[in-house]
Amino acid sequence: MGGYFGTALMVDLTEQTAEESLLPGEWYRDYIGGEGLGVRLLLDLVDPESELLAPEQPLIFTTGSLTGTAAPASGRCAVVFRSPLTGTLGASNAGGHFAPALKRAGYDVLVVTGRSEKPVVLVIDDDGVDFLEAEEAWGKGVGATEDWIRGQLEGSGWQIASIGPAGEKGVLFSSIMTDRHRAFGRGGAGALMGSKNLKAIAVRGTEELPIADPEGLKEAAKAAREELFNEAFVRDEMKPYGTPSFYDAICGLGILPTRNWQRDTYPESLPEMAYKTYHETLEVKPYACFGCPIACGRHTKIRTGKWAGMEGGGPEYEAMAAFGSKCEVKDLNAVAAANHLANDMGLDVISTGQVIATAMEWAEKGILTKERLGGLDLAFGNGEAVVEAVRLIANREGVGDLLALGSVRAAERLGPGAEGAVMAVKGMEMAADGVRASKGEAVVHAVSPRGADHLRPYASTIDAFGYREPELGIAPDASISITEDGNKGWVKPLMANAMIPNLLGTCLFTNITLGIKPSTWAKLHSKAVGREMEKDELLLAAERVINLERMVNAIFGFDGSDDTLPERFLKEPGADGPGAGQVVDLKTALESFYQAMGWDPEEGLPSVETLTRLGLDWMLYGCE
Amino acid sequence: MGGYFGTALMVDLTEQTAEESLLPGEWYRDYIGGEGLGVRLLLDLVDPESELLAPEQPLIFTTGSLTGTAAPASGRCAVVFRSPLTGTLGASNAGGHFAPALKRAGYDVLVVTGRSEKPVVLVIDDDGVDFLEAEEAWGKGVGATEDWIRGQLEGSGWQIASIGPAGEKGVLFSSIMTDRHRAFGRGGAGALMGSKNLKAIAVRGTEELPIADPEGLKEAAKAAREELFNEAFVRDEMKPYGTPSFYDAICGLGILPTRNWQRDTYPESLPEMAYKTYHETLEVKPYACFGCPIACGRHTKIRTGKWAGMEGGGPEYEAMAAFGSKCEVKDLNAVAAANHLANDMGLDVISTGQVIATAMEWAEKGILTKERLGGLDLAFGNGEAVVEAVRLIANREGVGDLLALGSVRAAERLGPGAEGAVMAVKGMEMAADGVRASKGEAVVHAVSPRGADHLRPYASTIDAFGYREPELGIAPDASISITEDGNKGWVKPLMANAMIPNLLGTCLFTNITLGIKPSTWAKLHSKAVGREMEKDELLLAAERVINLERMVNAIFGFDGSDDTLPERFLKEPGADGPGAGQVVDLKTALESFYQAMGWDPEEGLPSVETLTRLGLDWMLYGCE
Repeated sequence: MGGYFGTALMVDLTEQTAEESLLPGEWYRDYIGGEGLGVRLLLDLVDPESELLAPEQPLIFTTGSLTGTAAPASGRCAVVFRSPLTGTLGASNAGGHFAPALKRAGYDVLVVTGRSEKPVVLVIDDDGVDFLEAEEAWGKGVGATEDWIRGQLEGSGWQIASIGPAGEKGVLFSSIMTDRHRAFGRGGAGALMGSKNLKAIAVRGTEELPIADPEGLKEAAKAAREELFNEAFVRDEMKPYGTPSFYDAICGLGILPTRNWQRDTYPESLPEMAYKTYHETLEVKPYACFGCPIACGRHTKIRTGKWAGMEGGGPEYEAMAAFGSKCEVKDLNAVAAANHLANDMGLDVISTGQVIATAMEWAEKGILTKERLGGLDLAFGNGEAVVEAVRLIANREGVGDLLALGSVRAAERLGPGAEGAVMAVKGMEMAADGVRASKGEAVVHAVSPRGADHLRPYASTIDAFGYREPELGIAPDASISITEDGNKGWVKPLMANAMIPNLLGTCLFTNITLGIKPSTWAKLHSKAVGREMEKDELLLAAERVINLERMVNAIFGFDGSDDTLPERFLKEPGADGPGAGQVVDLKTALESFYQAMGWDPEEGLPSVETLTRLGLDWMLYGCE
Repeated sequence: MGGYFGTALMVDLTEQTAEESLLPGEWYRDYIGGEGLGVRLLLDLVDPESELLAPEQPLIFTTGSLTGTAAPASGRCAVVFRSPLTGTLGASNAGGHFAPALKRAGYDVLVVTGRSEKPVVLVIDDDGVDFLEAEEAWGKGVGATEDWIRGQLEGSGWQIASIGPAGEKGVLFSSIMTDRHRAFGRGGAGALMGSKNLKAIAVRGTEELPIADPEGLKEAAKAAREELFNEAFVRDEMKPYGTPSFYDAICGLGILPTRNWQRDTYPESLPEMAYKTYHETLEVKPYACFGCPIACGRHTKIRTGKWAGMEGGGPEYEAMAAFGSKCEVKDLNAVAAANHLANDMGLDVISTGQVIATAMEWAEKGILTKERLGGLDLAFGNGEAVVEAVRLIANREGVGDLLALGSVRAAERLGPGAEGAVMAVKGMEMAADGVRASKGEAVVHAVSPRGADHLRPYASTIDAFGYREPELGIAPDASISITEDGNKGWVKPLMANAMIPNLLGTCLFTNITLGIKPSTWAKLHSKAVGREMEKDELLLAAERVINLERMVNAIFGFDGSDDTLPERFLKEPGADGPGAGQVVDLKTALESFYQAMGWDPEEGLPSVETLTRLGLDWMLYGCE
């Protein structure tokens, strides 16, 4: 007997009760695990009429079939919820060591509902569940929170997921952090957790995982690691230099958002921000999540200047762009300080940097008045102001109280004219992978279920490396960069491929460059659970989850009319780099994409035929 | 939006609480409804370690996609539970008008768990759930119970399912009755309901059913009724004479159990028991369940003799054999009296008659001593003793207390030598469709999930009518009567066909003679729920449920080694009729059957390949 399906722990914070529940085996068959299982469970638990921060909103943590196993990079945890920032599906994903601990405590899934009267830490181990009073920890940063909890609990081996002041105060793009700097970043899970008065979850598990074929899994894992390191980029860039190594390449590809996306390259920053300089400027130690042979994480300490001695995880590439190029800041120390502070406050660095960049444009245009800025000199290029803005947002002080709502709601408050500087889709701020030169990222950002998202799939890697995975059946000459109509050839298989790690509980970075093949993932899964699965079934399950997410969003009121991009990309031609002079032809891109997915060209929702093919047509016929 | 899936009402009698729950849409897709849905839910709710009559044992009532609609004979309700008689899956099915009322009250499914402190009636209508104190009704027969409840409740239109004294006292083959004489008969659901102190369920529903295409459904229903009445047997026998019309034919086929199966024909009973005589001897009115154009039910009143004036539903064919031929009784009035009493006491007439026939053989052989019989002259042929035995069993008086345990447990108490007269499979008593001349019934009885069962499929109809449904792909020369090896050709499709009505909430008697085609059922379902389904998908779902039931029984500890028949059929050659001189070659029959089903030849359980083909292989890989 393998670990094909297991137990969900259902915690009600209002009643401070916990009970175990067995999820339907059919869900593990159809949605595999991880995010897929979480979204299916969300559909069951969520009331679409509920307020976004209502106590009954579920916060769902899920592991996958490979979580905590010998499979490479198998430490990922998915958190699934309805996003308080966007109202869409919320699905975020973090590494670290939290998920393996949860699984070894006996749980595939943790569901938290309700609202505790007072701040509380949920404590889970092999023996059961406890609720630790946490008023003392309220207000603490993430690092101090982890330290405080470890001081309260007996024994060692506690893994902690917590929120910082940002989540407590309901900043709508606050994150849940684990291992101090690994973030469930996108979509405001931290605000939801904070609304429940849940400061943290501490988990420790020592049970042996039920692996069907441990020896077979070890062998398959060895082969997978070899596949991974056959990829020169993983071997020569990711492992030694982590995600900062993306910076130079992305700048070269012309998809590095600069000055709130008014530009797409920032070559003048390279002398200070290039990844090799990064490793000289900062004191860097690599960090590995559970079971990861790459160890792309950076732990850095600022050596000099105003923030000397400040340390933490990152800045990763996204933070370098968020607090750096987007804000036209090339002071790596300032970027690192903003990053460390944002992580410790429990903010999503991507949205935070983007909100600040947007605010800089508002400040420049006078839309954010000096009165409103209260003395903060929020000019492009001012690294110190970026760091201060992070602090204000986390604490909802001064202008930070406005910005804490996210750029869309803040623009609504500011009134006419503000919207033009908002760089968001479906209410979520853009990450840092440009869309003028990468037609792939353009469509990915427009259609992602959780709003502006660069990862489903991480299309800009295709701009960098081309198509290299024959198992996905993508024609080698399929084009994303040249014409939006190229979507037809590649989006569906690549999107499914990018979903695989989210279902298995592994890291996207193992297939970001198409390192580990779908058939290898299928084999790893088979060895773990004892059920033979071929790659086509795994890819089909991934496609099913993508369509399930689309349907869940439809229930939340989203359809094709929400598949948009910021006007800047549709009307302002690119200023520099390979995308210079170009705008995005979104209409053509979406037509091509919907056709590839089998979605209705008008509504942008899965057709009856598509839902039937994927076994999801029951969603159309319920009494509710 | 159609009625593809709806709401389950979950009632806890211990806490006297009720809550609504939405079942996974995938279950409606995979298991359609009715018994399929019930078995899947049972798997979720039951603890295989629980005592068979423990309060936590669930009692599940389910309706189907066609329940209460214009489709013919759409009044069936399935009850699913773990049988206290056998420990196997319990699945029983009754007509009447209960299921349409439940569905119109807004519920597809009713789950009852827990145990009320005092006798109670569960009252369900459009507005909610109530618990009516019912100490006053405890001890009443089914008829008096229905009258009492209707006197207590306001308004009209209440449909009632109740137990009699037999269920209250835990007779292990007691039934749940509805409309006074429609029985959830087999497997002891009445004992389970009684153990919960649940005297009855009263339900009234006035909501309109969510039919996707009401006009299309009406048209399809009209065509279905025409198909049904193109069948001469339905038109010329079932409609005018009901199931008593089986009696003469079954006697002629040599599969009429006589003298506790020592004989297979009983021609000397025909002058008194033949179906035309039945309609002259008794005062007969036809009775129709909801939406049934056949109206095969008989309501009869005894005209003369000791039981003159006694009335009720039936005796149906099974009761005629149970209290008649099996006991070598040919006094139709005695048979009718035993039947009416058994129904009113809430006993399964099939098991009751079989237990009495077995007891008669024990009495003849001196295994049941005169002391134990306490003056009851339980000799073959004694109709009055049969009626008295029914009373004793229902009240657990005298020898009735022993017989109330069922024939297997009673034989264990009686010790060595008693087992030879027990005519049961997996602990459930045989119905009245012989197995020496019908090799089809032999294998059906041996493998049925709920013990000796003649209905899955009703193979003896094939002996009578041959194979007539081209849609099932059975070769016209496939043989069940001549050689056990013939199973290969017909069992799987015919078994799936027989499952269809149990999933849709319609009556087996509409396809007992292959009257309504699978494609017609698929069309009716499609019109009701708004989702197009072809016959092959429906038959596959039926096969899936058959395999699910096999797996649930495996969890309960049953496998191929339990697929047996009473020794009498394996060792004692038939005495008379077409099966004279024959025994059953069960080994060959099972080999052929397992092969057809894709079940392991040793264990008799679905192979991994079969489970995978049916999407049930997740059952192999759970952590539990």
